[in-house]
Parts: sequence; C-alpha cells; structure tokens
Amino acid sequence: MFEHVTVIGSGRAGSAIAARLRERGVDVRAGGELQLLCVPDTAIAEVAAAITAGPWVAHVSGATPLGALAPHVRRFSVHPLQTLVRSRGPEQLDGAWAAVTGETPAALERARWLAQTLGLRPFVLADDARALYHAGAVMASNFLVTLHRAAELLLVEAGAPPEALLPLMRRTIDNGFELTGPIARGDLGTVERHLEAIREREPQLEPVYTALAEWTRP
Amino acid sequence: MFEHVTVIGSGRAGSAIAARLRERGVDVRAGGELQLLCVPDTAIAEVAAAITAGPWVAHVSGATPLGALAPHVRRFSVHPLQTLVRSRGPEQLDGAWAAVTGETPAALERARWLAQTLGLRPFVLADDARALYHAGAVMASNFLVTLHRAAELLLVEAGAPPEALLPLMRRTIDNGFELTGPIARGDLGTVERHLEAIREREPQLEPVYTALAEWTRP
Repeated sequence: MFEHVTVIGSGRAGSAIAARLRERGVDVRAGGELQLLCVPDTAIAEVAAAITAGPWVAHVSGATPLGALAPHVRRFSVHPLQTLVRSRGPEQLDGAWAAVTGETPAALERARWLAQTLGLRPFVLADDARALYHAGAVMASNFLVTLHRAAELLLVEAGAPPEALLPLMRRTIDNGFELTGPIARGDLGTVERHLEAIREREPQLEPVYTALAEWTRP
Repeated sequence: MFEHVTVIGSGRAGSAIAARLRERGVDVRAGGELQLLCVPDTAIAEVAAAITAGPWVAHVSGATPLGALAPHVRRFSVHPLQTLVRSRGPEQLDGAWAAVTGETPAALERARWLAQTLGLRPFVLADDARALYHAGAVMASNFLVTLHRAAELLLVEAGAPPEALLPLMRRTIDNGFELTGPIARGDLGTVERHLEAIREREPQLEPVYTALAEWTRP
C-alpha cells in the first residue's frame, strides 16, 4: 500500500517500527508517501505542522487525537498496545494488538495495512475514546510496574526474596485473574493486619493499598 | 522425615497439598505425626486448640503468627507463595517459593522438608514479618487482579477488546518491569488527559489511578 515510508523519530517505538518495516520490504527513507511520526506526544503537533502537504501523515501515540496532525487531512493513527524497550528488536511487536483510528474508509484501510505490516492485530478505536483507552493501557502496564515495585519493597522489608513474586504474578495472569487470598475469603482481619504492618513500616504505601483493596471484590 | 501426615482442610491449599504429599509417597491419613492445618486463617487457633498434644502442628497461612498454634510448641509454618485454584492440581505448586517459619532448628528443618516435599523453594521468614510479607503477596497477586479489572473496564468503555491487554501485561513482566509510557517520559499532559477521561466516564477509578500514578516514578 505504501512502498516508501518516512519514520520520524528513533526512540523505542520508531526504532522497532522502522526495523520491522524494512524486514517487510518497505523502503524506509526521506520523502515517503507516508510520514510516520514516532515522536513524543508533546512534539506531534509541531512536527506535523512542519511537514509539507501531500503525503499521508500518521502517529503512533496512544492518547493523542488525530487533530494533532493538522493541517493534514489524509491522516490516521496506529498505536501498538505493547511496552517497547531498546533491548528488544522488531520481534517485540509480534502478537501485540494495535488501536487504529481514521476518519475515512481510506484512512482506516491504510491504518490496518500498517498495523498488519508491523505484525500487530488491529482493532478500531474512536478518536474521542483515545484518552480512556490509553488510561487503561497505562493501568495495565505502567501501574503493573508500580504494583511490583510496592510488593517488592514489602518483601525486602520483611526479609523475603523479591524474586519469589515472579511465579506468583505470572500464575495470576495464567489463571485468568481468578481472585484468591484474604479479600476473596472475606477475611477482613488479615486486611487489617496488613494495614497495621504497612502503617508501621512503609506508611507511604497505605494510599496504594487502600485504594486497591477498596476495588478488590470477590 | 514425616511418614504420616494429617491434612486438615480440603480447600484450594489443602487439596493441592494432600495430593502432592501422596504423589511423594507420604501417607496422608488421620493421626499423623504432623497435623497440617489448611483451614481459613480465622479458624487456625480454634482447630489447633482442639488437637491433642503430641504431634507436630503446622499451618500454611501467610499472615498468621505461629502463636495461633498454641498450646502446641512443636510447630512451624509453610506458606506457598502462589495463587492456588481448584481447576489445577498439585502441579501448581511447582516452581513457587514458600515462606518457612519456625522457632527452633528442629522446627525449621521440618518446615524446609515439607516445602521441598511439596515442590516449593523455601526461604526463612521471621514470625513478626509475616503481615508485611503477606501484604506484599496480596499486592502482587490480588491487586494484580484488581488492576486488570480496572484496565479491562476502561478498554471496554473505550470500545477496545480487553483481551488486547494480555500481551501487554505479560511483556511488562518479561521485560523485568522496565517502566515505559507517559510517566517514564515525564509527559504530565497525557496523565492529565487520562484523569479527565476517568473523571468523566469511570469516576470511581480516580483514587486507584491517582494513588498508583503518585507512586510511579521513572
């Protein structure tokens, strides 16, 4: 669909995307028929405004609306729903999903083509639902990092090896997120004992514990 | 070390533990040299008090101190750090760690034997650190369920397929919990956009989002 693509930005997303496009035989170079912005969200509007009208313009941001690509109207977005790191290559796109957004059938067709060429499984996301969607992605990934960090801190403080959390966290996912433990059993005494220990040893974790406990229901 | 073990309780832990002991050639029956309490935390003291003095007595609770096994003094605890479900058998113990607690070398030796016989990797946990340790375990497992539920709700509300979260969550673990996303980039505008969307569509999630965002630092 696009034979020549310009990838703007060489961060974690841009590097993996450019490498994958090359693997798929797409010519990645300046002056492409598609200008693909892989720049920080805050830079999208400025970079888009600097592109001379003509080619398709797209971004890979999760929360940024298509309006940020103005004045271009031949535009779309493909957001890989994956955490991308520099220590991995384009294979990290495999198996992930991608939110595709476009305002016309032609735009959506191009967004789907790009997602599939990258090895992603596309689903259509409404432009005005992007912030809500991306908040969910951040919860699932970035806050999972935070949750692990908090749990790790408590184990270390208790003198237990933090690596012991890994089989537990992986199995929680493998079990389809089936809730077990004290809250599932209605054992509020144990929850109270946790809170006492947290208040005494790691009080800064109390808001995290209480906000999540409040939301944990069998 | 123990040839005859009595497993009291046939819930998720008791079933998996009894099956694993039998697999390992241990005679699981009434009147064992070890009375292993696999009952709810709130029932431990009462059940222990009803056991005639003589055999070793142990529990498999995470947060309950050894004192709950009074009046027995030949006592210990082995807590499998794993989420156990009825749809799996004893193999779900494989690869998990176990917190072992005992007040004498003889008790710790027996606790280690039990953990290893069950297929668990033992580490010693101080009796007074149990509540803190178990709060960490609940964060890592039960609150992971909650986090997924919250993320799922946001994706569904945004019209996105919730199963798209799975490759993201698994990769977050596989990447050693490397933080990516808006907070890692210092992009507070995106965080503000998430909060606006949450306030508008799922306001009950605001405390969860803010407590976790506060704790998420690059």
